[in-house]
Amino acid sequence: MLVLGVDPGSRHTGYGVIEVNGNKLKHVAHGVISPPPKAEFSSRLFVLFEGLSEVIQRYRPDEAAMEDVFMAKNAASALKLGQARGALIVSCVQAGLNVSPYSPTAVKQALVGFGRAEKAQIQHMVSLLIKPPGKLQEDAADALAVAICHAHHAPAKALRENAA
Amino acid sequence: MLVLGVDPGSRHTGYGVIEVNGNKLKHVAHGVISPPPKAEFSSRLFVLFEGLSEVIQRYRPDEAAMEDVFMAKNAASALKLGQARGALIVSCVQAGLNVSPYSPTAVKQALVGFGRAEKAQIQHMVSLLIKPPGKLQEDAADALAVAICHAHHAPAKALRENAA
Repeated sequence: MLVLGVDPGSRHTGYGVIEVNGNKLKHVAHGVISPPPKAEFSSRLFVLFEGLSEVIQRYRPDEAAMEDVFMAKNAASALKLGQARGALIVSCVQAGLNVSPYSPTAVKQALVGFGRAEKAQIQHMVSLLIKPPGKLQEDAADALAVAICHAHHAPAKALRENAA
Repeated sequence: MLVLGVDPGSRHTGYGVIEVNGNKLKHVAHGVISPPPKAEFSSRLFVLFEGLSEVIQRYRPDEAAMEDVFMAKNAASALKLGQARGALIVSCVQAGLNVSPYSPTAVKQALVGFGRAEKAQIQHMVSLLIKPPGKLQEDAADALAVAICHAHHAPAKALRENAA
């Protein structure tokens, strides 16, 4: 099973694809989509939408997981982040992917066993667990972390859904 | 020229299409897209995206205008509204439409000449200016108001762009 993880952001959206085989996790791809900073906001949203659609077409993931954000510095930044997230969700759902949301705390808990872990710890655990080649940008590391978090939660979720 | 106005909302998104011919405005269509309230949030966003895409395909507007929101009750509602707006913007840009944003104050100013006008005044002026048939839901009235606001601003905007 291939899992796509997404760390949404209007300036930089990280994505990561991992292969999940029982307990085994394997790195497939990762990257960051950065729309031209001086473009109009609506064009930047479309670059995010198209960029993620291309990633989905290339790797054909079976499931998607996206970091959910309940907190923001202020309403203005929440609106920007929300719009980016909306554009990215549409690209997943259009490709037939279900999008599972995970809070930053859930991601940290799954990776480090501690909901208030530091960014550096997350990056360290991602490197340890799936050994991505080359240097890992923070947004891509976060996206891979969301995918790993989903891999941990997905079996329990599937069991619950089958039982229902 | 056909102008599409959109009043974004995750529960109800209003849309309105008007024909602009010099100073003359004519009602073409209006409606509200309301995703099933109990569906998952990501599916609801996709319903907004698909719904607006269908409206665009049916009426083929030349330009789009969308209410911009800088204020929200709190970050959580800003995130929800933002995601709806992101999904809707993608459907416009995918159809080749430029999306002009207008603040609620600009819309009120254009319709009533007063930036802090009441909702009822907006609905009244929309009815007066373009005589939409039947009863007008609030979200559809707001969407038509955004389209009318764009019709007022567009000539000045085009002049500025030609001069640049």
